[in-house]
Amino acid sequence: MGAKVGVVLSGCGVSDGAEIHESVITLLALDRAGAQAICMAPDIAQLHVVNHATGEVAQGATRNVLEESARIARGQIRNMRDVRAEDIDALILPGGYGAAKNLCDFATKGANAVAHAEITRLVRAMHAAGKPVGFICIAPAIAAAAFRGTPVHPRLTIGTDAETSAALERMGARPVSHEVDEIEVDDENRIVSTPAYMLAGRISEAAAGIEKLVAKVLELAR
Amino acid sequence: MGAKVGVVLSGCGVSDGAEIHESVITLLALDRAGAQAICMAPDIAQLHVVNHATGEVAQGATRNVLEESARIARGQIRNMRDVRAEDIDALILPGGYGAAKNLCDFATKGANAVAHAEITRLVRAMHAAGKPVGFICIAPAIAAAAFRGTPVHPRLTIGTDAETSAALERMGARPVSHEVDEIEVDDENRIVSTPAYMLAGRISEAAAGIEKLVAKVLELAR
Repeated sequence: MGAKVGVVLSGCGVSDGAEIHESVITLLALDRAGAQAICMAPDIAQLHVVNHATGEVAQGATRNVLEESARIARGQIRNMRDVRAEDIDALILPGGYGAAKNLCDFATKGANAVAHAEITRLVRAMHAAGKPVGFICIAPAIAAAAFRGTPVHPRLTIGTDAETSAALERMGARPVSHEVDEIEVDDENRIVSTPAYMLAGRISEAAAGIEKLVAKVLELAR
Repeated sequence: MGAKVGVVLSGCGVSDGAEIHESVITLLALDRAGAQAICMAPDIAQLHVVNHATGEVAQGATRNVLEESARIARGQIRNMRDVRAEDIDALILPGGYGAAKNLCDFATKGANAVAHAEITRLVRAMHAAGKPVGFICIAPAIAAAAFRGTPVHPRLTIGTDAETSAALERMGARPVSHEVDEIEVDDENRIVSTPAYMLAGRISEAAAGIEKLVAKVLELAR
């Protein structure tokens, strides 16, 4: 029986939800490694609904993070509130603006960001249980927010962007620059991260780093 | 310079749009083979908006196929109306209910299905130009609809479902049973198909067939 790996989705679409390519590449890599993905999302409203054809925010529109995330999960999704660290062997958070708009408020608050209470609970519980957590793309901002004010200072990468890295550092994390196909492994905290579409210009570039992240997370889960 | 391959999307989500896994796996396989994906969709309303967490149709809700498809394409999408067979070397249509609800009306009309005019135009133009077209999952129903009443009787697979195969046959196509990781190649018509989530129980099963389809379509495009 393979590892059970929670995958936290934040909607469905790079500009207001989970980055779709990153999420699917994660699910495919987990399945190919014999692991079981357990998709989950919080049952909350999205901050924005963005028209992805024009890039404009659809004024007055609302969508639910759990319902939209269910599109990526083909309906097999759990309310994050009902998931405990005991239920899973590892956790992975894909990126997309949903990670910074819905799972925490890094997109609007920067270094003052706070993570959603259910995210903070599960990420801290995984860490306390010594179980690995993977953060893709901008999702490391969630880690920085979830551990701020604790003795945990995760070493993370969001690629090479100086401004974003500086914000993570102000939150207490230790950002490290990496290329798109690389991963940062914080062995002490069992946290793995990769830049994906923070840097990727092509889907195969994002996949190269994500596949390494999934392999490392599964290795740490054993 | 790699082949330019049109990818026709039908929304974003298995129950009312393009199947997300199938679409992303197609884009990744194309990129890894050095081909350039050109995502496109018709600028029309979806037949349904389905809450993917519950499976229920959201009464009164409307979404636009082009705008939702843009989520999978990360904003890089063309209106199908503006794409000519001369612009591309091959065409691939992922599945999902959107293929049978938005690109044609097979989901409601069965063997009486008609494809959207822009789909029929481009699929027939690709065929007339001797350029390959790949159909994934339920998308072969679009081929059957697009060629009905013409001398073209494409050999296709939608997997093993007898009822769906019988409907395609009544439309003039020649369905062939295949397992999930197999492809049907109609060399005469340069049409390739694979069952994907018509049969797949896991994302890696869908990927096995789609990767073969992409490789074959690119081989036929050379």
